[in-house]
Amino acid sequence: MTSAVPSVPDPQLLAASYQAVRAFTMQLAAPLSAEDCMVQSMPDVSPTKWHLAHTSWFFEHFLLREFLPGYRVFDERFGYLFNSYYYQVGQMHRRPERGFLSRPALAEVMAYREHVDAHMQRLLSEADAEVRRRTVLGLNHEQQHQELILTDIKHVFSCNPLKPAYREREDTVAGSPPPLRFIEVPAGVQRIGHEGEGFAYDNESPVHEVMIQPAVIANRLVTNGEYREFIRNGGYRRPEFWLSQGWSTVQEQGWQRPLYWNEDLSAEFTLAGMREIRDDAPVCHVSYFEADAFARWADARLPREAEWEAWARGCELGGNFADSGALHPQPASGDGKLQVFGDAWEWTMSAYSAYPGYRPDDGALGEYNGKFMCGQYVLRGGSCATHSTHIRPTYRNFFYPADRWQFSGIRLARDAA
Amino acid sequence: MTSAVPSVPDPQLLAASYQAVRAFTMQLAAPLSAEDCMVQSMPDVSPTKWHLAHTSWFFEHFLLREFLPGYRVFDERFGYLFNSYYYQVGQMHRRPERGFLSRPALAEVMAYREHVDAHMQRLLSEADAEVRRRTVLGLNHEQQHQELILTDIKHVFSCNPLKPAYREREDTVAGSPPPLRFIEVPAGVQRIGHEGEGFAYDNESPVHEVMIQPAVIANRLVTNGEYREFIRNGGYRRPEFWLSQGWSTVQEQGWQRPLYWNEDLSAEFTLAGMREIRDDAPVCHVSYFEADAFARWADARLPREAEWEAWARGCELGGNFADSGALHPQPASGDGKLQVFGDAWEWTMSAYSAYPGYRPDDGALGEYNGKFMCGQYVLRGGSCATHSTHIRPTYRNFFYPADRWQFSGIRLARDAA
Amino acid sequence: MTSAVPSVPDPQLLAASYQAVRAFTMQLAAPLSAEDCMVQSMPDVSPTKWHLAHTSWFFEHFLLREFLPGYRVFDERFGYLFNSYYYQVGQMHRRPERGFLSRPALAEVMAYREHVDAHMQRLLSEADAEVRRRTVLGLNHEQQHQELILTDIKHVFSCNPLKPAYREREDTVAGSPPPLRFIEVPAGVQRIGHEGEGFAYDNESPVHEVMIQPAVIANRLVTNGEYREFIRNGGYRRPEFWLSQGWSTVQEQGWQRPLYWNEDLSAEFTLAGMREIRDDAPVCHVSYFEADAFARWADARLPREAEWEAWARGCELGGNFADSGALHPQPASGDGKLQVFGDAWEWTMSAYSAYPGYRPDDGALGEYNGKFMCGQYVLRGGSCATHSTHIRPTYRNFFYPADRWQFSGIRLARDAA
Amino acid sequence: MTSAVPSVPDPQLLAASYQAVRAFTMQLAAPLSAEDCMVQSMPDVSPTKWHLAHTSWFFEHFLLREFLPGYRVFDERFGYLFNSYYYQVGQMHRRPERGFLSRPALAEVMAYREHVDAHMQRLLSEADAEVRRRTVLGLNHEQQHQELILTDIKHVFSCNPLKPAYREREDTVAGSPPPLRFIEVPAGVQRIGHEGEGFAYDNESPVHEVMIQPAVIANRLVTNGEYREFIRNGGYRRPEFWLSQGWSTVQEQGWQRPLYWNEDLSAEFTLAGMREIRDDAPVCHVSYFEADAFARWADARLPREAEWEAWARGCELGGNFADSGALHPQPASGDGKLQVFGDAWEWTMSAYSAYPGYRPDDGALGEYNGKFMCGQYVLRGGSCATHSTHIRPTYRNFFYPADRWQFSGIRLARDAA
Repeated sequence: MTSAVPSVPDPQLLAASYQAVRAFTMQLAAPLSAEDCMVQSMPDVSPTKWHLAHTSWFFEHFLLREFLPGYRVFDERFGYLFNSYYYQVGQMHRRPERGFLSRPALAEVMAYREHVDAHMQRLLSEADAEVRRRTVLGLNHEQQHQELILTDIKHVFSCNPLKPAYREREDTVAGSPPPLRFIEVPAGVQRIGHEGEGFAYDNESPVHEVMIQPAVIANRLVTNGEYREFIRNGGYRRPEFWLSQGWSTVQEQGWQRPLYWNEDLSAEFTLAGMREIRDDAPVCHVSYFEADAFARWADARLPREAEWEAWARGCELGGNFADSGALHPQPASGDGKLQVFGDAWEWTMSAYSAYPGYRPDDGALGEYNGKFMCGQYVLRGGSCATHSTHIRPTYRNFFYPADRWQFSGIRLARDAA
Repeated sequence: MTSAVPSVPDPQLLAASYQAVRAFTMQLAAPLSAEDCMVQSMPDVSPTKWHLAHTSWFFEHFLLREFLPGYRVFDERFGYLFNSYYYQVGQMHRRPERGFLSRPALAEVMAYREHVDAHMQRLLSEADAEVRRRTVLGLNHEQQHQELILTDIKHVFSCNPLKPAYREREDTVAGSPPPLRFIEVPAGVQRIGHEGEGFAYDNESPVHEVMIQPAVIANRLVTNGEYREFIRNGGYRRPEFWLSQGWSTVQEQGWQRPLYWNEDLSAEFTLAGMREIRDDAPVCHVSYFEADAFARWADARLPREAEWEAWARGCELGGNFADSGALHPQPASGDGKLQVFGDAWEWTMSAYSAYPGYRPDDGALGEYNGKFMCGQYVLRGGSCATHSTHIRPTYRNFFYPADRWQFSGIRLARDAA
Repeated sequence: MTSAVPSVPDPQLLAASYQAVRAFTMQLAAPLSAEDCMVQSMPDVSPTKWHLAHTSWFFEHFLLREFLPGYRVFDERFGYLFNSYYYQVGQMHRRPERGFLSRPALAEVMAYREHVDAHMQRLLSEADAEVRRRTVLGLNHEQQHQELILTDIKHVFSCNPLKPAYREREDTVAGSPPPLRFIEVPAGVQRIGHEGEGFAYDNESPVHEVMIQPAVIANRLVTNGEYREFIRNGGYRRPEFWLSQGWSTVQEQGWQRPLYWNEDLSAEFTLAGMREIRDDAPVCHVSYFEADAFARWADARLPREAEWEAWARGCELGGNFADSGALHPQPASGDGKLQVFGDAWEWTMSAYSAYPGYRPDDGALGEYNGKFMCGQYVLRGGSCATHSTHIRPTYRNFFYPADRWQFSGIRLARDAA
Repeated sequence: MTSAVPSVPDPQLLAASYQAVRAFTMQLAAPLSAEDCMVQSMPDVSPTKWHLAHTSWFFEHFLLREFLPGYRVFDERFGYLFNSYYYQVGQMHRRPERGFLSRPALAEVMAYREHVDAHMQRLLSEADAEVRRRTVLGLNHEQQHQELILTDIKHVFSCNPLKPAYREREDTVAGSPPPLRFIEVPAGVQRIGHEGEGFAYDNESPVHEVMIQPAVIANRLVTNGEYREFIRNGGYRRPEFWLSQGWSTVQEQGWQRPLYWNEDLSAEFTLAGMREIRDDAPVCHVSYFEADAFARWADARLPREAEWEAWARGCELGGNFADSGALHPQPASGDGKLQVFGDAWEWTMSAYSAYPGYRPDDGALGEYNGKFMCGQYVLRGGSCATHSTHIRPTYRNFFYPADRWQFSGIRLARDAA
């Protein structure tokens, strides 16, 4: 039985990685006041302070407590406050009440981070393979929360009538997206999933063969301009484009446009405040239901995740990521397969489920992925809020089909003629 | 592009089928009073009267209205009352209010059935291919509602403190189920889906190749006795067995046992009233969440639908069906693959989704299957409430993972060592 | 301590009353099919069959069981099914699920009624004072349910898209309502509440003195024409007319007109089906919130219940009642105080609460009135669905401020200049 | 037309009052961090920051904007953010989302307060009668929010698993409460309501005569020890003590003890953190439903508000108030009528409604009281969170019968023998 998290790098490199990842989190929190770090604008959103503490608790609970001799936990009560969903660890604070925690103060959480960092450096100085394996997991876990810090604070600020900016936007790179064009998917028996040395989550394993039918996938993401066309064509009023649950959601939620767009479809809320909607930039903050309805309107469909992976394999891992700083999807430009990584997560039509032979980790860490394999859809490719070191072709992100607060966009596919 | 509903039988045979299927519906309604036929005990349940009318409306709307020259609709208002979910047909009565319809009276609905039947016989006497194709679809549609008549009235009566019996139970066939044993699934590239002459729904098409990894599937369904062991072992109190959504559902709904079991796990509500639970009979009325948790507890998993289909192919289509009259799952007996058809629908771990190359019908009939491909799981094999002529190895039934009012049971699978 | 239910009439008269009241209930149920008698269109509404059974259970439980030697209850399970809210009697069927009871059949409930009637006649042939006192209470109780049979079936039929008529309407008496005019209320210290021989509920006792400030009350009810003026004047869109809770209710429920009015304000649903709205007839099916908002718009207020009682004292007890058969409010005509009794219940601005010195009955019968003295408002004067023998100036009806399915209307009052 | 807010004090005194009241608010906020001031733990609760801003907006909107020539509003957007419920002023931020407002920062709100204070001092230096009248209203308004700052932060901290203390408790004054004893209410015609020079809200006017029946009222509040007896006697499990709505609330909310008591009834959450429950101190944080049920269990009832006022008239206005600093109810000691003012608000059995002849203010200020006269009950006497200068015998506080987060307690009454 091979481990699902195989990567056990050199200790010194790992210590450096640890510092870099933890520092990037601090950099993301830097523009925010203690008050900003408090807000939970909906149950799915967590306060920044909670993310800062939870990621530290992860290292404390799964590493320091278990592997660093003589380690004393920073505060016994933090286990209850900052456990997210590991039932095998114990009871936890109710999720929708994370915004009630004015105490511990942000300053205390920052002290917690420093405490954990100092001890982690000690631990990493002579780490065995299991420590290194878990540290790598902890860092990847922290990177996931980095993305959530961004998407959550975007939602938080969008709910404030003052529409504050998280920070001023970098200059947008000009682009002239090429026409939509479909590129063949490698068909027949294909190998899917993670193999080799680098880190991957357990849900990317084991590598296995799948059968892919002939299909094509679009060269770039769907743009705001194309999506506006769908709206103007009655997209949100015509049930024939929608899944049954999607149509109910549209009715119940009164959806008429992507999250963050204003009523006249001219401006959208961004991490730099309200900004004009660029027609040439990718649409994002759409749900699976909207992505699927758009695709049906466009006489297309969403890609299957295996198709996507086979098609994306070999593409360069570059793109518009969190560390490049735009924090907003950018227009495509150039030839070939564009925006494959970064910019916006791409909804696939594949329900999130276990690969054949999948086995979760033992113990509480086994709750990381497996127990969420129900009711969600896979997204691929990362977004402008993902760190560039946190993505790979086999990466499987997953959200509920009505979720819209992630940077989630649309890439079209079609069955081959 | 081949039609998803290819079967266009001989007109005379079809007229006979029509009569037989419609008569079986009447037979199912026979034990019920007009009052019984009124009740809607939850939004998922429809009153028997509604089923009787809706199935007739299906023929009137999609056949008589369009293909029988000079046909006058029985009552213009029935289109609104008895359309289920075909938005392209027009607006419809709100689903949770079907139990409010004391008018039209049951007698009037019976007259509607006769009216439709008389005209259908005329139409079928010289039916072209499209009429025959749609009639076959309408009959299969009616058979689905036959099963719902049984499962819905079971729920209705279970909500009545008097616990009335739908009808007295036939003598239960004695059985001595063989020990649980796992039988190999044909691995490698396999052909899945419907092909050939017989009727199938569009969602069973097109036939296509899939890659199946080595796996085994259990020789029979999980029994009540085995399931009781799971309960006694803390099954409903230990989150480690459950999907995250399943665990929430258990908490919110206060589930502690299958639907219809009494508190001390000794008796269950059946279509023959309260009856002792037989340890050797298959457990049923469990949700996907319960089936999945049981499997995890048993160090197994649920089968994938492709595995199931490849494994079940070649099995005889016999079993305990609605027309054999038990209307309750029966103990397995014998050797080989048992209870593959009939007894209880078998939850698979496959989310319900489109086969590669799937295309729904044009127009309103295209709403039949495709728009439900979200959030549901596939069940296979039919149940004791399914008519024996309504099942086949490629048949895909689908329900939400929290649904329990169907005759849904558990067959285990495992990855091959 | 005087009894709150003092009336203990002559046994023979009582037996005749019993027969008459019970017969009137049967007369009200006569136009309805067994299916009609099943429907519960919202939790506040009970199926007719339930009313028929519950009123019989009341006699069985509080009289036959206790006072008729050797009496055998008709069906032990009916106590659970048809107890409404008497916790001291025992557990009861959940209120919102009364519409699930296809069994017992209507025919069985009718047999139950006959059984109870036969035994009650025996019991009444030699009844002591307590039996007579309780029988009188039971008959008044039945009369309350007679009114509910009418208001509930009206709601039930209004929810059916076929808009069936309960029965054809009697010819409407023509009327030419006099102009609105205000008539003085007797001010100063006034005696309020029930005294003397006739029956009254415990909540009308004890008689007591109150202080009334100078005020005037309108000669007639507010008409449909006047209410339409309020609507056209933006009544439902201007928060300044509304109580805070009323305004929330308007928003949440989307209220734009009285219950049963159609969108263009031209027709309303009645017990005779959809009918044109007569401008000169009293508005009814308005909530307390609407009555109060209308009054504020009209620079008036609703009467206090003591004002109403002092003002109404001495008026003739005639009016448009259930037994006169119109079953719909009729236009006022004539001079003086009009429509004081019958036509429509009149919302007062008085919250329903205990009179000074109020004591409920002992035991379960004490649950009849007292425990509802919270959150409701008093209505006075009876309606077109009230039996003429069931009303008096001291009668206190009570409903929640958002309730609209009773025949509830508006009479204005003002502080004296 | 007499004004409902008649008090127009000397300008110099008023300026001093203004400073004192505003300073006390700052004193209450002093122990709290910016993060503490953010939290909204339920829709009824507002963040401290919101209270600080809203009270300032009240002066800005109703005074500075209208009466100070050349005044420039501090921030145009604050009108939307910090209007509470004055529809005639304009649209407002959604109440349940007040906790989302990390911006404006607390520091900015403090600057807003200073800005308003500086301009108010200018305005008050030469204020006409209307300005003085409104300023007095604004100060009373601010005092109401001072109480809410305390009760809201108590709720906020109680929801934090760390159970932080708002501040350390002052030494509790020892007490030995006298036995419960009932003291006569002045019966017959009594004058009720506000008259004379001092400030009162419009809802205390006009003074008017009422008729009071013979009754007695308890010398002191019900104690924790007495209430624990009720619990041990099955108080929360016996429906016969409860109003129908109260019993439903007990079931739905799972109430088993007062808000803030721990499970074993030994300790309670206070503004000084978790503390032992003193048997001799008054019970508080009980709903109307609990107060009413306790009274029924004790063979008593709650006082009517007119009884209370007539009975309390002439009592000294001293007591345990916010400015004495205990911030928790204290044991009674001494003779006569005890704890009449301060300690805990006393639920009366009177629904909150308009006095005869009541007229709200014109314009938006008319929304202050009148529109809440529905569904709430009157409480009298002030609490340990009320400022000593903010209470009087005619003062009418009001809350919904299920509300428990105020310092609300119980004083018993009985009809005179």
